[in-house]
Amino acid sequence: MKVAKFGGSSVANAEQLKKVAKIIQADADRRVIVVSAPGKRHGDDTKVTDLLISVAEAYFDNDPYEDRLESVLNRFREITEQLSLSSDIVEEIRNDIQNTFDSTASDVLKLDSIKATGEDSLAKVLSLYLQSLGMDAIYLNPKDAGLFVSEQPGGAQVLDESYELLYKLNDRKQIVVIPGFFGYTKEEKLVTFSRGGSDITGSIVAAGIKAELYENFTDVDSVYCVNPTIVDNPKEITSLTYKEMRELSYAGFSVFHDEALIPAFKASIPVCIKNTNNPTGLGTIIVSKKEPQENPVVGIASDTGFISIYVSKYLMNRELGFGRKLLSILEDEGISFEHTPSGIDDISIIVRESGMPKDVEERVIARIKEELDPDTVTVDRDLALIMVVGEGMDSTIGLADMATHAFAKANVNLEMINQGSSEVSMMFGIKASKVESAVRSLYDTFFK
Amino acid sequence: MKVAKFGGSSVANAEQLKKVAKIIQADADRRVIVVSAPGKRHGDDTKVTDLLISVAEAYFDNDPYEDRLESVLNRFREITEQLSLSSDIVEEIRNDIQNTFDSTASDVLKLDSIKATGEDSLAKVLSLYLQSLGMDAIYLNPKDAGLFVSEQPGGAQVLDESYELLYKLNDRKQIVVIPGFFGYTKEEKLVTFSRGGSDITGSIVAAGIKAELYENFTDVDSVYCVNPTIVDNPKEITSLTYKEMRELSYAGFSVFHDEALIPAFKASIPVCIKNTNNPTGLGTIIVSKKEPQENPVVGIASDTGFISIYVSKYLMNRELGFGRKLLSILEDEGISFEHTPSGIDDISIIVRESGMPKDVEERVIARIKEELDPDTVTVDRDLALIMVVGEGMDSTIGLADMATHAFAKANVNLEMINQGSSEVSMMFGIKASKVESAVRSLYDTFFK
Repeated sequence: MKVAKFGGSSVANAEQLKKVAKIIQADADRRVIVVSAPGKRHGDDTKVTDLLISVAEAYFDNDPYEDRLESVLNRFREITEQLSLSSDIVEEIRNDIQNTFDSTASDVLKLDSIKATGEDSLAKVLSLYLQSLGMDAIYLNPKDAGLFVSEQPGGAQVLDESYELLYKLNDRKQIVVIPGFFGYTKEEKLVTFSRGGSDITGSIVAAGIKAELYENFTDVDSVYCVNPTIVDNPKEITSLTYKEMRELSYAGFSVFHDEALIPAFKASIPVCIKNTNNPTGLGTIIVSKKEPQENPVVGIASDTGFISIYVSKYLMNRELGFGRKLLSILEDEGISFEHTPSGIDDISIIVRESGMPKDVEERVIARIKEELDPDTVTVDRDLALIMVVGEGMDSTIGLADMATHAFAKANVNLEMINQGSSEVSMMFGIKASKVESAVRSLYDTFFK
Repeated sequence: MKVAKFGGSSVANAEQLKKVAKIIQADADRRVIVVSAPGKRHGDDTKVTDLLISVAEAYFDNDPYEDRLESVLNRFREITEQLSLSSDIVEEIRNDIQNTFDSTASDVLKLDSIKATGEDSLAKVLSLYLQSLGMDAIYLNPKDAGLFVSEQPGGAQVLDESYELLYKLNDRKQIVVIPGFFGYTKEEKLVTFSRGGSDITGSIVAAGIKAELYENFTDVDSVYCVNPTIVDNPKEITSLTYKEMRELSYAGFSVFHDEALIPAFKASIPVCIKNTNNPTGLGTIIVSKKEPQENPVVGIASDTGFISIYVSKYLMNRELGFGRKLLSILEDEGISFEHTPSGIDDISIIVRESGMPKDVEERVIARIKEELDPDTVTVDRDLALIMVVGEGMDSTIGLADMATHAFAKANVNLEMINQGSSEVSMMFGIKASKVESAVRSLYDTFFK
């Protein structure tokens, strides 16, 4: 039994939904389908979820929202017409949204309900369409599927008991279409996951039913070994481990929702990334373990937006507790640190720019100066991280040599090297302005 | 005004003391002299300080100590005879030691007094000898010089008020000979520094009098750029910054007592390492700042005896406070950590073997498992660190490339690279068994 999840671009219009239906028909094991809300049909289109959020915002601001609502309804009107389905769903959406606004729920829960309308309605439309093609398919609400979550609007966490309930989906003979992105609390309140959370739903359901495979259909053939906006026609990755995927997605690979891998990872369910527009392509499969490869490097990821806080103090390493005190200051200020490379009398703390705005930075620096009496504290807000990722690289002699040579050839100074702490990656810090030339040189070194 | 400190081998016998006198005579600015206790005269000789410790141990154990004391006295008898000086000092030592044993002081303070006898007596002998050569020299007790310390036997810390008192030495016209290794508490109790503490005395006195130079006379011509037991006839280092010296001494360079640099560093006093047996050689000078060099690498140090504790947990970097909690466990257990290289979901803690015995390791690992619920915890007790050190290397493109290439050429796998956290070093972790081949390859790369 497989779980197939279709992302926003795969369900953006009737034409795409026809492809989805063919994919479901092509494999009798595709028995649980999870869908996103309709995404962009073309470059400057607006996603249905964004339209819905704007409807809610207008409502909360007491502005007229009817035009915006009409845009949402038009998307579904167009889809149902083109698929020759009843357009009852259109009025249903209008009524549901009105009922939500009229309800006594809190504003945050109202917002979650509105946001979830896109996925929920599309799941209904797709099940109708599959039925119209003669397939034995039904829409299933997450509540009826057994997907229960914590009451954290916009950031729900799955409750452990869900997995046992979801397992019962194995008993159903029909194809089940479940809307992604949301679940219900034990009190039957609708709560959404974080944005992009349909991947999370798919992963939870796959873990729950102990699926043989979790297929994640999107609009790329596979995961590329490097950012294709930096390198033209890069190699495709056919297979990846969870760990490799996690390290790559940390530094900018956005194929898969970060949080979404957890349930699949814990249940060891293989995850396959496939293209709705080219479903017979191999795709990229993410597994727990894989055979050793000839080239231990599977991918090169890069991301900007990092800050380095550098602290030096003569004889720092003889001062018991210095590092712990430094990290405590960050924790106090609610700043999650990424890395802490340290020398003898120096330590750097790498944080994400988003995690430390300018005003917080000033307070943190003042506290470090006052509480730790260092010789120097400096902040560099212009750091990019590059990850060279692959299982087995920790035991391959000469890889660090190849990588550092690639940086030198591209005339890029290494602000930081962090190797050996992870078994599956080497991390390099460079000036953000040098990312493209560095990545191209690394690609040439490891993949050409 | 210069402070000249002479180490144990420089004052081991009459012949060496004659060289010391000539050195003092050769430069009228050498006005404050600090001496160690007589060291080894030949390979299997015993240092006077070790003889004194054995005397004290015998006394504390109620064993006869007279023979051991006689060995100490013979060293001074031999020196005074060969320098044609009065041998009154011999009886003086015997009486001082007897008086110490008979006093009401605590055993730890008695031990400190006995240990300090070597330096104190040698300072008296040297001042007599200088006088016999017609020089205007006197012995000065640390108390009279103004060297006051905390009451931490065997690990005294200088009191800040000492510096002002020591500055008054500038008013003296004579050559002052001060014994190294000890000072006095405000209650006039004699307390020693940590072992090798004559370097500390010299550094404190140099800082106190604001010396133009602190000369540290030992038995090597200069600091070598690499361990001469690994590489034959390595290059000598003519000038080093404090930071460079500190990084080199961290990983095995034992030319200079670690703690001893602090007072000189804080007062920006240049420190010169010279050879008593070749005083006109250039030596190695340690300064605050130096001109940029053609070769940014000044030295390669290596040290074994490190342990790596590796902890991994899926999504570790999203868990606020994980690193801090991990370091708190170590702090609780009194373990000073050296470095904490971290990946996305992994962190390694590098500690010195001496800081974490086997039984403590077991407790630490158990606590990490229980309190942090990680996926993996492993310990590697076979780690060596190699430091490639030099000011300006943080901005030199291609250095990391050269270094990693040297490791690859020597067929050494890099367990860890830590670069960029320190501005003056790159740190590499390798298996201890590979140290020699790695260091040779690095030497060939950077110095040939």
